Amino acid sequence: MDGVIADHLNKHLTLYNRDYEDQLTFADLQGKKLREMAKCGIAVQKYYQDPTFFRDLVVMEGSQSVVKQLQENYEIFIATAAMEFPLSFQAKYEWLTEHFDSIPKSNIVFCGDKGILHADYLIDDNSYNFKNFKGKGILFTSPHNVYETEYARVNNWQEVAAMFLG
Amino acid sequence: MDGVIADHLNKHLTLYNRDYEDQLTFADLQGKKLREMAKCGIAVQKYYQDPTFFRDLVVMEGSQSVVKQLQENYEIFIATAAMEFPLSFQAKYEWLTEHFDSIPKSNIVFCGDKGILHADYLIDDNSYNFKNFKGKGILFTSPHNVYETEYARVNNWQEVAAMFLG
Repeated sequence: MDGVIADHLNKHLTLYNRDYEDQLTFADLQGKKLREMAKCGIAVQKYYQDPTFFRDLVVMEGSQSVVKQLQENYEIFIATAAMEFPLSFQAKYEWLTEHFDSIPKSNIVFCGDKGILHADYLIDDNSYNFKNFKGKGILFTSPHNVYETEYARVNNWQEVAAMFLG
Repeated sequence: MDGVIADHLNKHLTLYNRDYEDQLTFADLQGKKLREMAKCGIAVQKYYQDPTFFRDLVVMEGSQSVVKQLQENYEIFIATAAMEFPLSFQAKYEWLTEHFDSIPKSNIVFCGDKGILHADYLIDDNSYNFKNFKGKGILFTSPHNVYETEYARVNNWQEVAAMFLG
């Protein structure tokens, strides 16, 4: 969800720069998590504890239309590691039902360890989610993962479409 | 979760009998869902829409100690079909962290279709959850399922212990 269909990083960076009077850009985050570059370190995760943080995220470009196309040939589930931020449940659910109403509620999964998912493919921006996953992991490009080479990679939703519908 | 480690039925029946001046018992529910026997029919599901309904459910007898014993030999996940009742997320999460603190948050799953779970076994009181599940389904006895014969059955947590640790 985050970093694949929901753009959490733009909002996170904007809030951080505002509150800490910093000017970090996506270029500064190549190969780094925001918490590694932020003046406040791990405390930058506090924004995720705000129950409203995930409610108004911008939809990743092309994700809605490509998901709908994929649904014609594949069974699509949306999984999100929500257990790290339990206050986010309601906002994430509302965001999904607003922006991805083609996904039935039965196909939404809030989990922790994504190794519990029984699926052929997992598109994710965090490669650690592939560790216990039994299907094929596909890395969705995000600044923090640009130097990783171990997994198949898609840079955007057009490339997802090309991979699965091409 | 519900009907396996959390006793939702006792509370549901008590609230229904109070509000509809009825005297339904577990004996009346043999082979039936409450919504089939309730004067109000499917409207009896309204109790699940109360965000607090799932917060104070009684823990099923023996479940805590057997889950802990199982964890010595198995990786245990708790999965619940929470997507049907999105207002229940917070209460279910709080209940789990209160009563099953041996389960790491990473092993909690809120889902819909349990076919998404990658596990060897699924202990559940609703046999429809086994339909898309690729592992072995084990039916946990509840009044509504007593006449079902298609799946392996456990009547209580002592029988779960005997099956997996015996």
